[in-house]
Amino acid sequence: MAIEVRTATASDWAQIWPIWRAVVGAGETYVWELSEMTEDEARAAWMLPPPAEVLVARDDGEVVGTAEIRPNQVGRGSHVANASFMVSPSCAGRGIGRALAVEVLDRARAAGYRAMQFNAVVATNVRAVALWESVGFTVVGRVPGAFRHPSEGEVDLLVMHRWL
Amino acid sequence: MAIEVRTATASDWAQIWPIWRAVVGAGETYVWELSEMTEDEARAAWMLPPPAEVLVARDDGEVVGTAEIRPNQVGRGSHVANASFMVSPSCAGRGIGRALAVEVLDRARAAGYRAMQFNAVVATNVRAVALWESVGFTVVGRVPGAFRHPSEGEVDLLVMHRWL
Repeated sequence: MAIEVRTATASDWAQIWPIWRAVVGAGETYVWELSEMTEDEARAAWMLPPPAEVLVARDDGEVVGTAEIRPNQVGRGSHVANASFMVSPSCAGRGIGRALAVEVLDRARAAGYRAMQFNAVVATNVRAVALWESVGFTVVGRVPGAFRHPSEGEVDLLVMHRWL
Repeated sequence: MAIEVRTATASDWAQIWPIWRAVVGAGETYVWELSEMTEDEARAAWMLPPPAEVLVARDDGEVVGTAEIRPNQVGRGSHVANASFMVSPSCAGRGIGRALAVEVLDRARAAGYRAMQFNAVVATNVRAVALWESVGFTVVGRVPGAFRHPSEGEVDLLVMHRWL
């Protein structure tokens, strides 16, 4: 069954939230602390208004992943996009992250962005780093110890970039 | 006359705003576009509530520079500080940036941050880069073409870091 990726609607949040809770709750890939956030705060942090775009990946009608695209900076930096991705932990290894990445890159290009930048890829998240490198990103920065990992301690954050 | 650096009060905004307007209006060092912002938006972007700290540098009672310190990330990245600085263009070369930098580093250390990170130092802003390097920062990342400079076109943004 092919993964379908489409624009998220407000009603998709009900299926995004369990994924968000699992991914953020694991504490290994995002700086957000689940224990410090209400569901409303999580929704506000993810379901951003335009110019952001929020996507869901679905498999047989079930939401299995989500991504969002937004300007990495305002004003004089708004030609560079930023994006974030989450895949349901129970669906790892099925190409959902890659399907989202391909669609996010296409949409960012269509929206006129010149490049895409990630500010904070956790260096120990080797699966994500490998995925981004496989779709053309390179590491352009490394901030030492900038992420408090729940089991690894203070680990590096990578800045990654690709032209569109 | 020594530069005095102290915590900003709400009433300092009246003297910060002309500096902010001059620095942001020049378009060479910040992503904000002055033409897209009201004074209220500028004030909200600079005079951040705690845990941020906003400082002013004064010379003979006149505000000649300002800085603010805040967590660079929430949650699992909140042990790293970020800071921003502005000096009145008419007061350049008088050590105001350095006085602010020294105070900002002291305060960040006192507040318990482990490091300080700048996300977007414009590479053509050689005076700022030299100042940060002279107080212990190193370049840990370089994002190509991420800043639209008004006369230089798309120039790089540097990520700079130092431990505290």
